[in-house]
Amino acid sequence: MSKPYELLKEHFGKLARLNHAVTFLQWDQLVMMPPGGNHSRSNSIAELSAMHHELLSSTYLAELLENCLQQECDDETRRSLFEMSRVHQQALCIPSDLVKAKSLAGSLCEHGWRKQRKDNDWDSFLLNFREVVNLSRQEAMARQSAASDRHKTPYDALLDLYCTGDSSELIEQIFVELKAELPGLVKQISESQTAETAVFHGPFSTSAQKKLNQKLMGYLGFNFNQGRLDESNHPFSTGDRGDHRITTRFRRSDFLDALQATAHETGHASYEAGLPSKWEGLPIGSSRNMCIHESQSLLFEKHLFLSKAFLSFFTKSIHEYLPQTSETSREHIWSACSQVRPSYIRVEADEVSYPLHVILRFEIESKLINGELEAADIPEAWDDSMTNYLGLSTKGNYTDGCLQDIHWTDGSFGYFPSYTLGAVNSAQLFAAIKRTHPNWNERLGQGDVTFVHDWLKDTIWSKASSMDSQEIIEQATGEGTNPAWFLAHLKERYINQE
Amino acid sequence: MSKPYELLKEHFGKLARLNHAVTFLQWDQLVMMPPGGNHSRSNSIAELSAMHHELLSSTYLAELLENCLQQECDDETRRSLFEMSRVHQQALCIPSDLVKAKSLAGSLCEHGWRKQRKDNDWDSFLLNFREVVNLSRQEAMARQSAASDRHKTPYDALLDLYCTGDSSELIEQIFVELKAELPGLVKQISESQTAETAVFHGPFSTSAQKKLNQKLMGYLGFNFNQGRLDESNHPFSTGDRGDHRITTRFRRSDFLDALQATAHETGHASYEAGLPSKWEGLPIGSSRNMCIHESQSLLFEKHLFLSKAFLSFFTKSIHEYLPQTSETSREHIWSACSQVRPSYIRVEADEVSYPLHVILRFEIESKLINGELEAADIPEAWDDSMTNYLGLSTKGNYTDGCLQDIHWTDGSFGYFPSYTLGAVNSAQLFAAIKRTHPNWNERLGQGDVTFVHDWLKDTIWSKASSMDSQEIIEQATGEGTNPAWFLAHLKERYINQE
Repeated sequence: MSKPYELLKEHFGKLARLNHAVTFLQWDQLVMMPPGGNHSRSNSIAELSAMHHELLSSTYLAELLENCLQQECDDETRRSLFEMSRVHQQALCIPSDLVKAKSLAGSLCEHGWRKQRKDNDWDSFLLNFREVVNLSRQEAMARQSAASDRHKTPYDALLDLYCTGDSSELIEQIFVELKAELPGLVKQISESQTAETAVFHGPFSTSAQKKLNQKLMGYLGFNFNQGRLDESNHPFSTGDRGDHRITTRFRRSDFLDALQATAHETGHASYEAGLPSKWEGLPIGSSRNMCIHESQSLLFEKHLFLSKAFLSFFTKSIHEYLPQTSETSREHIWSACSQVRPSYIRVEADEVSYPLHVILRFEIESKLINGELEAADIPEAWDDSMTNYLGLSTKGNYTDGCLQDIHWTDGSFGYFPSYTLGAVNSAQLFAAIKRTHPNWNERLGQGDVTFVHDWLKDTIWSKASSMDSQEIIEQATGEGTNPAWFLAHLKERYINQE
Repeated sequence: MSKPYELLKEHFGKLARLNHAVTFLQWDQLVMMPPGGNHSRSNSIAELSAMHHELLSSTYLAELLENCLQQECDDETRRSLFEMSRVHQQALCIPSDLVKAKSLAGSLCEHGWRKQRKDNDWDSFLLNFREVVNLSRQEAMARQSAASDRHKTPYDALLDLYCTGDSSELIEQIFVELKAELPGLVKQISESQTAETAVFHGPFSTSAQKKLNQKLMGYLGFNFNQGRLDESNHPFSTGDRGDHRITTRFRRSDFLDALQATAHETGHASYEAGLPSKWEGLPIGSSRNMCIHESQSLLFEKHLFLSKAFLSFFTKSIHEYLPQTSETSREHIWSACSQVRPSYIRVEADEVSYPLHVILRFEIESKLINGELEAADIPEAWDDSMTNYLGLSTKGNYTDGCLQDIHWTDGSFGYFPSYTLGAVNSAQLFAAIKRTHPNWNERLGQGDVTFVHDWLKDTIWSKASSMDSQEIIEQATGEGTNPAWFLAHLKERYINQE
């Protein structure tokens, strides 16, 4: 194409190179850095982020984009320009005063929250949180008015940061279907389950667990020439082309926690590693959104690692690396991973009740941002929904209720739905994989996931951001996100126990 | 002071924050990064380095500096402005075409050298190396003419990058004194020594060695809240305020190699950690030059770690962490560390003959850059000096002769002298420490180096770049760099065996 488009690619290449630096400085901060480094590290990251923001919102970029958008071009370039404009607009539409004020209010609120949650102190939290809500509403309105053709509500404009392309209307439809079934399913399954029978004879050394987790990553297709496994307080995945880094955490009493986290993060890393190199550094070449990202991690965790066939295969490795588990069968392990029961805490929730925790948060945060609910009214709304969905009251119990998550403290509204969209998408994708690979069970039983990699690379990873989220799901599975597949998966796994 | 000076400080703060990023991206590249990350990492570092260079050579900076230099100010600010001008000028005086050409020629030459050294292939090396010399001469002349008040010769202008403030005239005087004594000393000591008596019963596990090295760092005053020890192919030290990272390499057959490298790098890191925070991010607050830096690392390695008293103390830790060494005495260990003999390879040379390797290189590279010697004449000059200084001929043996070092391949002329200036300075500084602390031997015997830290912090570290190199040595020891202290140290240690 024209010279301006080449200049655009060079400009986004520069942004990608800055982003690379921030990515690995943050990885180091969480994984390697001694405490004393925090001051200079934070300053350096802030400087690079400011440079990134300046380049992304620059007049130079705006003019190049306008120039290119006025010219004839092929579909791929058109799409590439659309994604460039989208991220440019996202950077441009928030006044820097608001960015700073939100960052400050978020830090204050998050810092206070760490103690207030322990102290069950909602009133003190509310004092800081009101300002976070206030500024997030301003942000949402600014984002909506900058792209009112794409966002029906202010909340939709925040959703666009994480669930890009999936509107609150779509999400609500999906959640309505889940809400109709999940409370009953949770009850039915939890009442029918016998108590956990697994007996683990720890402690399990960190070094042995690390080798076992690397073994798992290898079976799940991770390439150690292009990545690493390390430890951190909270498992995460990050990186850049050719260098994908995941972390997990090791508990000496329980080896399953790390394995599940590792499988999960390997899914995230596989998606990133599978993005096409032809669009390197360009917005069109990025992962689509968090709903697709989470579908990859949950597919690896819940559908590959926790499948009967793969887990049977992998139990041999568990016995090999952790000899104390020689008496522990695949059934023991599955029993420990599959307990379903209503609980207060989202991050500890099982696969069946987890979406209800998310739906509750989606309903509250969307109303909050759209001005239909005030911060002070959250505890009551929380208690109502917990009682309706899971039969648990959180009245007066803020610690295990609306103070349990970190997400809202810094104003990350719009993130929660991606967890459940991801779960729903993962079941739908895995069902499609099974349809196209009738011998899937046999292959997983041999520890072979190459067919999954090939299929995902073809249908999801290679698409990057060249299509909308729903278009990607549709071309891969024949329809847009449909919760029926997820519900069928739950029934199959927990009721029919197939 | 005035507003322009505040703006200067802010500008250098920005440079420091960029530098922080490059520093830790490079550390990661050498210590953590999987091979697949090299492409995007190199691109990111190059981008940040280009941004750094642009800011450091900017007209904005030039104007601020000029503005400030015209105003009255106190001595400290004057000195700070001088150091700012110096680094600005260093960045400004080399045309970017020359930077690129030298980088390209250096990469080509270094790449070829890896094979040519193995193949003893001087002729092929020379084909690439001529261009490196040619471009380095151009660089040297450009640097000299930009600061002709400070540099008498083109080579002096390159020296200024590493041995800042120590002229080739000064270095030559020092080297003349060393040359007069060292060849005789090497002969005398090597003939008088009995063969090595140490017997080590490896293999020594890497994890046990790592703990032992961390123990050593702790005794040498390293603060692990502000730093780390890791492994890499070549030991090095890097970091930023509050985060000092050193690496070592572990050989399974020999635990002494890692310990000496660790002590050495701990010296480098201690200097950086001791720089005053009041000048954070400013050129005046940087370490002075490589001659002072190397004096700190050699002081920690040769004078603290390898002192009889400290080594006796630390042998207990060696026995504790490496139980196979229980029969190995302090004398065995010292014997293994103190063998003196003429040898071809600089990096394997002992403390006594090492300076002769450096002097040889200094004499050749200074003539080369000043146009008094051509690249093609290096092998003959090398053989002459090796024969004169160490009684070893390298005729026709390029592998162990003029092809052994990596330094010249990318045009890093002017670096070599800092090794020996550092050795000389370290002996002079340690002699001064002993004078002011008569109980030094007793304290080292208790593993106590706090008095060394205090003294160095007071006389060296706190000065940063607020004085010239020779001023720093003089205020610390009463005189400028004087090789007599180093020669006395060698005689004391290897002849009188005190």
